Amino acid sequence: MQAIARANEGHAPSYGTDEWTVRAIQMFRDLTTPKGDAYFVFNGTAANVLSLASLVRSHHAVLATAQSHLVNDECGAFEKVVGAKVIAIPTVDGKLTPELMKPHLIRKGDQHASQVRAISITQPTEIGTVYSFEELSAIIGFAKENDLKLHLDGARLVNAAASLDCDLRRIMDGFDVVSFGGTKNSLMFGEAVVFPKGLTDPDFRFIRKQLMQLPSKTRFVAAQFLEFLGTDLWRVNAKHSNEMARRLSSGLERSQYATLTQKTQANGCFVLLPKKLVPKLRDHSFFYVWDEHTFECRLMTSWDTEPKDVDDFLANLERLGQEST
Amino acid sequence: MQAIARANEGHAPSYGTDEWTVRAIQMFRDLTTPKGDAYFVFNGTAANVLSLASLVRSHHAVLATAQSHLVNDECGAFEKVVGAKVIAIPTVDGKLTPELMKPHLIRKGDQHASQVRAISITQPTEIGTVYSFEELSAIIGFAKENDLKLHLDGARLVNAAASLDCDLRRIMDGFDVVSFGGTKNSLMFGEAVVFPKGLTDPDFRFIRKQLMQLPSKTRFVAAQFLEFLGTDLWRVNAKHSNEMARRLSSGLERSQYATLTQKTQANGCFVLLPKKLVPKLRDHSFFYVWDEHTFECRLMTSWDTEPKDVDDFLANLERLGQEST
Amino acid sequence: MQAIARANEGHAPSYGTDEWTVRAIQMFRDLTTPKGDAYFVFNGTAANVLSLASLVRSHHAVLATAQSHLVNDECGAFEKVVGAKVIAIPTVDGKLTPELMKPHLIRKGDQHASQVRAISITQPTEIGTVYSFEELSAIIGFAKENDLKLHLDGARLVNAAASLDCDLRRIMDGFDVVSFGGTKNSLMFGEAVVFPKGLTDPDFRFIRKQLMQLPSKTRFVAAQFLEFLGTDLWRVNAKHSNEMARRLSSGLERSQYATLTQKTQANGCFVLLPKKLVPKLRDHSFFYVWDEHTFECRLMTSWDTEPKDVDDFLANLERLGQEST
Amino acid sequence: MQAIARANEGHAPSYGTDEWTVRAIQMFRDLTTPKGDAYFVFNGTAANVLSLASLVRSHHAVLATAQSHLVNDECGAFEKVVGAKVIAIPTVDGKLTPELMKPHLIRKGDQHASQVRAISITQPTEIGTVYSFEELSAIIGFAKENDLKLHLDGARLVNAAASLDCDLRRIMDGFDVVSFGGTKNSLMFGEAVVFPKGLTDPDFRFIRKQLMQLPSKTRFVAAQFLEFLGTDLWRVNAKHSNEMARRLSSGLERSQYATLTQKTQANGCFVLLPKKLVPKLRDHSFFYVWDEHTFECRLMTSWDTEPKDVDDFLANLERLGQEST
Repeated sequence: MQAIARANEGHAPSYGTDEWTVRAIQMFRDLTTPKGDAYFVFNGTAANVLSLASLVRSHHAVLATAQSHLVNDECGAFEKVVGAKVIAIPTVDGKLTPELMKPHLIRKGDQHASQVRAISITQPTEIGTVYSFEELSAIIGFAKENDLKLHLDGARLVNAAASLDCDLRRIMDGFDVVSFGGTKNSLMFGEAVVFPKGLTDPDFRFIRKQLMQLPSKTRFVAAQFLEFLGTDLWRVNAKHSNEMARRLSSGLERSQYATLTQKTQANGCFVLLPKKLVPKLRDHSFFYVWDEHTFECRLMTSWDTEPKDVDDFLANLERLGQEST
Repeated sequence: MQAIARANEGHAPSYGTDEWTVRAIQMFRDLTTPKGDAYFVFNGTAANVLSLASLVRSHHAVLATAQSHLVNDECGAFEKVVGAKVIAIPTVDGKLTPELMKPHLIRKGDQHASQVRAISITQPTEIGTVYSFEELSAIIGFAKENDLKLHLDGARLVNAAASLDCDLRRIMDGFDVVSFGGTKNSLMFGEAVVFPKGLTDPDFRFIRKQLMQLPSKTRFVAAQFLEFLGTDLWRVNAKHSNEMARRLSSGLERSQYATLTQKTQANGCFVLLPKKLVPKLRDHSFFYVWDEHTFECRLMTSWDTEPKDVDDFLANLERLGQEST
Repeated sequence: MQAIARANEGHAPSYGTDEWTVRAIQMFRDLTTPKGDAYFVFNGTAANVLSLASLVRSHHAVLATAQSHLVNDECGAFEKVVGAKVIAIPTVDGKLTPELMKPHLIRKGDQHASQVRAISITQPTEIGTVYSFEELSAIIGFAKENDLKLHLDGARLVNAAASLDCDLRRIMDGFDVVSFGGTKNSLMFGEAVVFPKGLTDPDFRFIRKQLMQLPSKTRFVAAQFLEFLGTDLWRVNAKHSNEMARRLSSGLERSQYATLTQKTQANGCFVLLPKKLVPKLRDHSFFYVWDEHTFECRLMTSWDTEPKDVDDFLANLERLGQEST
Repeated sequence: MQAIARANEGHAPSYGTDEWTVRAIQMFRDLTTPKGDAYFVFNGTAANVLSLASLVRSHHAVLATAQSHLVNDECGAFEKVVGAKVIAIPTVDGKLTPELMKPHLIRKGDQHASQVRAISITQPTEIGTVYSFEELSAIIGFAKENDLKLHLDGARLVNAAASLDCDLRRIMDGFDVVSFGGTKNSLMFGEAVVFPKGLTDPDFRFIRKQLMQLPSKTRFVAAQFLEFLGTDLWRVNAKHSNEMARRLSSGLERSQYATLTQKTQANGCFVLLPKKLVPKLRDHSFFYVWDEHTFECRLMTSWDTEPKDVDDFLANLERLGQEST
């Protein structure tokens, strides 16, 4: 808020030529390589779609997990806007591997088949796990070997960096384009499409404009990113929310009313909860039912979750569990 | 050819207002219901894409098998042109069932998720099997119950009708729109998009024109369909090619060098063949390797396949098999 | 800013279910009809494209002026996203009339021609003029008579309302959908797609999501609109900026170095300035050269333009003009 | 017909790998340059859209005349499929010139504006005129100077070659891609997308497949082109139909009931006819009313028009004219 307020003082040129935007782009360059670049857009779906639009054409295909946001939560934006195919690969832990991808690298050059051209992974994954550096290396190597482009959906990327205890350069290393999340990281609005090695489409600014993602007052997005990433704020927030997720995870592990389904490696717990308890639990703290069939639930923590919030939830679960038996 | 030659005599108005086209549309009406309608297009991919374009909008999803032509062999035409999502469901025998589809009917009304709106099945399936009437009824009932539209990819539909020993009305019954194959049925070019119960999009003729599928000399397609379906030709041809496939299938079953992977219910055999024999076998008669990993092959028969062709192929297989051991 | 700060306190559900959004939608309903509705999006290009996406299909055409934002300043977003045709009609004063539109209402029902389906006008126009109520009535009648839908691009609609001295209900009356500007009216970001008579597409929320325009924290846009339109702020600001434009216009009229090209009816002056003076004038206050060929310039005033700013500009012009002769 | 019949004998591989297709492509190479290439598609709209799809991206714009087929007669196929903008330039005689195009070459590099990238001209034009070599040179030079790509819509290109008394190489010289008409030149179906200087998009075959324009039995199109262009047939036919148009034109010039509106330089006459005579004239020979407002009519001649047909039409006109006064 304060960052925005400061950007609101005085007049500034529009459409990304103001000083905040220039500085924020430089910051992303400093966080990646001298050729690195960044473009601000409005939301996470746009960040993903525009990232991929810079990598593939409509006769290409993108490999992603069946659990990905790209596949499930963007109402087909990619198909509508880019017109290409996403191949949804089922996984156990939300992570792609060379083994899982290999069978899809077929029919190269066959004009009847969408040609696989890019890989999109999410870090941390949509189900709360984090790719290790070894796992990332394997994917980056596989992409290189097969001449595939690499996209990173990083809606909560700072949580992965905090989890792996690395800096932001390391976490983006090896990718062609990154959806760097803002909104899920306490920003009011705005995401960054980051090109760690340089622009992947020289006409990207036209693409952004045409796809209705050029903010006229870009400085408000830029100012928030400068505040968030230019200081230690991102790390403090991310470490805190990860810590709260671990606290929650430990409590759930001890509870007879909960069964964790995934490792808790970032700021989300995935857990099976008794169906009849779910509505009552949601009265106290809102969360999503991840799978309507199994009642697997997704419990997210954030920068402003407090230990008491976690403990209250766990206490609630115990109380409701006992009452229901 | 003769049908075309007759349509070539004299002048005729263009863009589907000639007498052949009018008669062919009437023929399809007679083959379905009084409200039935038909539009001619150029090829099978177009028939599928335009059929589905008349059923769904870009924020919808279509259920199809992972083996379908729609998913594998149209270079992403559906995604590019309609912009919607296809949910590719793995199957063992190329057939969808209510059980397989049910788990995908989730998140109704949730704006983040593509809304499932239609089912597309192929008859006979891409792997040579044929839906029985019981299986079809189950799907039609499921669609009705869940307010889903039904598309039938019938590139080789006559072979299914011959296999089930029914007429064309019965084989199209219950569907909203049918891709009625021409090219794969000995026609020089042209397919029909048939609406058994009536047009599913009142603006369909604009859609066809805009998607570059309005033949100016529609009469040449219409004349071929009149010849093919207006007489007993389709049944004779289809029964023959199915018979040849059965002959081939029986031979393969007896061979130690071949393992059938699917039931042979129409005019195609799916069979595992020894990798090193495949190139030599293809020198004699061309066929596709269906699965690059397993060397499952697809052997198709057609109206002009002769018993001798089948027997030669089988003899070849035995000879090559023996030589290679 | 203060409105946003208030919306930032406490937690709130996302994706438009928070209380600010609910109240802001109700406000737009109160400003139109009991069936009225409103959806928030990120920017002006999106507001136009989504508005029209709710009115036309890809085989339709939209009538607009050759000077419109839709035609010139959206990098083809409409063509890319909706896939339909815009017919760009040249005008002298930025206004469509029934006479100008009539010749384009041809070939109805002809499948080879894009079918005219909607009219899009801008109020105030892109060149600073304002449609009178008589002119609006003529267009609304023409649309009704010819079964055409009506879109209003109102990026600066409050300035038109102030100019015509009417309320917001009156200025939106008769339109099917309105792009109600926020960003150009001092909001940090956000526009409203308003449906004065009710939703024109029941699936509009899916369209918005798929076109990447669903803000997760909608409340920040809603809060700004509530502050801006729920009080007298819009009228005070708009009257002021219009007044400043008139002051500027009067000064330019008296200057021998300037020739006004359009009536100044809202908050913009269109004026021919000597080519060699333009760069120096822009050193003092930024403005756009509207026409690269004639050096017609667009001078906009805003809520925070002060009389002194106007007078300084005019004095500058005189000084630079005299120096240059 | 005979060409098709020959191509129908025996089996042949599909999707363009047969010998007819290979020979037809070589023929087009011989007709252009050693790098020249050709792809067969189904109809004229597809030839235009695919040609342009190989030259521009969705944020580009194409310059064409307001009279062009691209603008008026393809139901928005280009906008739907390519998603880019066509700038429709009004002309008197159906011809673009550098002077007409120059004012549209503005805002280069401005991300808010569709970037002009290609020119599409029609030869002969839609209104029966033919670009001279001088006019073509001026356009080719202008394109080169401004780094624009050049498309030639040649639905009736042979008539232009006959009119200019040149060979097919000369008439395609200087263009990046040509829609070479088949259907309007007596072929049953099929058009060629010709790349005189070599492919303009290395992935063009995927584009063709995805846009539903890959004929599985390409040989039938190829065989017709071989027959038509590989012999003198095209020249004989084109010279004849042009001659018939001139005969018609001379007659109309002498008639008090007709006013020619364009020079007759190929196989079409454009002429104002008395409104009340038109329906009766169309009872005898079908033609289109080109302009619903003025009753300008388009009279086309073809390879099988006979002198008697022309003379009968003219006699009819005189008789009906006299009766009506």
